[in-house]
Amino acid sequence: MLEDKNNKQHDISEYGEFGLIDLLTKNIEVKNNSTLKGIGDDAAVIDNKDRLTLVSHDLLIEGIHFDMMYAPLKHLGYKAAVINFSDIYAMNGKPEQLIMGIAVSSRFTVEALQEIYEGIKLACKNYDVDFAGGDTTSTNRGLVLSGTVVGWAERNDVVYRSGAKENELIGVSGDLGAAYAGLLILEREKAEFQANPNMQPDLSGNDYVLERQLKPEARKDVIRLLKEAKIKPTSMIDISDGLASEMIHLCKNSGLGAQVYEEKLPIDPATVAIANKFEIDEKTFALNGGEDYELLFTITQQDYEKIKDIQGLTIIGHMTEENAGINMVANSGQLIPLEAQGWDSFRKEKAEKNSRNENQEGKSEE
Amino acid sequence: MLEDKNNKQHDISEYGEFGLIDLLTKNIEVKNNSTLKGIGDDAAVIDNKDRLTLVSHDLLIEGIHFDMMYAPLKHLGYKAAVINFSDIYAMNGKPEQLIMGIAVSSRFTVEALQEIYEGIKLACKNYDVDFAGGDTTSTNRGLVLSGTVVGWAERNDVVYRSGAKENELIGVSGDLGAAYAGLLILEREKAEFQANPNMQPDLSGNDYVLERQLKPEARKDVIRLLKEAKIKPTSMIDISDGLASEMIHLCKNSGLGAQVYEEKLPIDPATVAIANKFEIDEKTFALNGGEDYELLFTITQQDYEKIKDIQGLTIIGHMTEENAGINMVANSGQLIPLEAQGWDSFRKEKAEKNSRNENQEGKSEE
Repeated sequence: MLEDKNNKQHDISEYGEFGLIDLLTKNIEVKNNSTLKGIGDDAAVIDNKDRLTLVSHDLLIEGIHFDMMYAPLKHLGYKAAVINFSDIYAMNGKPEQLIMGIAVSSRFTVEALQEIYEGIKLACKNYDVDFAGGDTTSTNRGLVLSGTVVGWAERNDVVYRSGAKENELIGVSGDLGAAYAGLLILEREKAEFQANPNMQPDLSGNDYVLERQLKPEARKDVIRLLKEAKIKPTSMIDISDGLASEMIHLCKNSGLGAQVYEEKLPIDPATVAIANKFEIDEKTFALNGGEDYELLFTITQQDYEKIKDIQGLTIIGHMTEENAGINMVANSGQLIPLEAQGWDSFRKEKAEKNSRNENQEGKSEE
Repeated sequence: MLEDKNNKQHDISEYGEFGLIDLLTKNIEVKNNSTLKGIGDDAAVIDNKDRLTLVSHDLLIEGIHFDMMYAPLKHLGYKAAVINFSDIYAMNGKPEQLIMGIAVSSRFTVEALQEIYEGIKLACKNYDVDFAGGDTTSTNRGLVLSGTVVGWAERNDVVYRSGAKENELIGVSGDLGAAYAGLLILEREKAEFQANPNMQPDLSGNDYVLERQLKPEARKDVIRLLKEAKIKPTSMIDISDGLASEMIHLCKNSGLGAQVYEEKLPIDPATVAIANKFEIDEKTFALNGGEDYELLFTITQQDYEKIKDIQGLTIIGHMTEENAGINMVANSGQLIPLEAQGWDSFRKEKAEKNSRNENQEGKSEE
C-alpha cells in the first residue's frame, strides 16, 4: 500500500551467498570504540577493556534448516544452542550466556515447547553456558529458533578469519560430510514414509551420521587441545556450510589463496559407505555438505611439530598467494577450484520450487 | 517419526503470558560468575569487571508483529532495530552494537532486502549504534527479523525490574495507546482495501498515531533527561505490551502491588479521537494496546521535586504492598485490577483462528 514499486527488482537468487551480504553490508561504518569487529566473522567482538566480549546469532527456520518430520524437538533445541556455541569457539573464545527466542504456531503444545527447552538446557549444561534469556512468541505457521550467544576471550587470544599468512598450514578437526550423509538417510526415509505411511523407518546402522545431523556437538575440546599444545591458530572459522564455502571465507578475509589435498580430507568410513550407496562422490559431502560444525583453521609452519600427533586434527593443505586461487589438488593431480554451492539456501529453495512447479503443473502455491 | 506422542498434551493458549514463561524457565540455574542477571528482565546483564554488558533479543514475525500489506520495509527495519535499543535503555544502559538476522522467502527481491537494511542502518545512525553483524537466510514463507542488541552500563547505573520499594512513585514517559490507535487505522484501511482493491487508502490526519505504530522511537532522550536531573530510577521496564502487562512485571519482580490513577494516564488527543471513533474506551488503548516503547519506572518520593517539571514525564501512581494488588483507581473511585491481556499473542492467534473458522466453515487450514 505504501511502497514504491517502480524500480527494477532483482531476484535474491541472482546473487551468490557472498555477493548478497557484500551488497547489503557495504558502507556500514563502525563508530563506537568498543566495536572491534563488526560484520564479517563468526562473532562480533566488543572491547570491554578487561576482556573481549563475543556475540553471535543464528536462526534455525523450519522447512529450511530442519524438518519437523524427523528432527526430535529436544535434539532441535540442543542443536540450536550448540551451533551458536560453535561460533564462539571459532573465535577461540568461551561461550557463557545463551539467549533463545522461540516462535511457534498454536499447533504446538506446551509439552512440545518444554521438549525444545529441555534440549537447550541440556546443551547449556554440557557446555557450561548459562541460559540467560528467552522469549517465546507465536507464528502463523512454522517454528523459528533464534539463538544469541555471548562469550568472551582474553584480548590476545581472539582468532579472526583474517589472520592467515601465505604458506601457513590448513588444519581441520574431526571428519567432514557425515552430517550431510545423515540428512540424506533421513530424507530417504521421509520420502518412503510419505509414499507408504505404514512403513517403519529403517535407520539401523546409521547411528553416527544421524547423530552428526540431529545432535551435533561444538568443538570445545579442540579449543582446549590447541591451548594445551600451545598452538594459537592464526585464523579460524567453524564449518557450517561445507569446507569449500568456509575455505573461501578464510581466503577472502585473509587476502590469500589456498591449496587443499583431496587425499587428506578426513571422511569417516560410515560417510563413505553412504556416499557409495547414493552414488555420490564422498568428496562432495565433505566440500559442500555442511552442518559438520568442525573447526577449520590455519597455523604457522613452526607449529606443525606440535600438532602432528594430536588425534582428530588433520592438516589438509596450505595457504597460497591470492592469485593462485582456492583449489583442491585431486588425487589425479588435477587442480579443481573450490566453489561455495552446497548451502546457498536461496538457490536451493528456488531449485526446489522449480522442480515442484515442473512436477505439479497447474497447482498454485503461495 | 521419532517422537513420543503418548503423553497428554496441553494447548499453549491454556497458559497465560506469565505462566508459560515460568513453566519453561523454572529450574534454570546460573553457573558462570559473569552472569549477573539471566531470564526475567529487559536484557541479560553480564559482568565484564570494568563495565556491565547488556544483551537483549527480539523477534518480529510477519503476520504476528507486522503486516507486509501496510508496513513499509524501511520502517520495518527501523522498528526491528529500535525496539531492541529500547530494551537497553530500559536497563538505564547505552546500546552500542546491533546484530540482525533476517529470514525471507524467495518472493522477496534484493531491493526489498536493501530497503530493510536501509531502515536498520538509519536506526543505527540515529542512535549511535554499530550494525555489527547480520545474517540473511531463507524461509518457505514469511519474513522474520531477529535482532540482538549489545549495550553497556556502569556497574552502579543498571536499573532492574526488581528494584522498586513500597510507596515509591510510578512514572511513565510520553503518552500511551497511540501505537495501537495507529494499528486500528491501518487495519481498517486494509479491510476496506481488501473489500475494494480500487480504493485509495485514507490515512490523512492520522500522522502521529501512524508514525507511533510504523516507526516508533526508543526513549534515549528520557534516559538523558533523568541523568541530567540526577534521578536514578529504582526500577524500569519498556512498555512493549501495554501499561497493564508491564506494571504487572514490575510488581511481580519487585514483590509489590501498585496503584495507578486513571486520570493521570497520559493519552494524546489524537489517540482519544480515534478511540472515540472506534467506540472503544481510550484507557484500553493505554493499558493493553502495546508497542508504545515508552519507559515505565519508579522513583523515590524524594525525587519528586526533581521530576515534577520535566516535560513529557508523568507520575501516574505509587507502589503498594503486595497484598493490595495491582489496581487502577478509576475516575469513579472504583478499584479496577490490571490484567495482562492485550498482546498475549497465542490467545490472539487462537481467537483469530476461531473467528476464521466460524467465517469460513468448510475451508480447511493447516
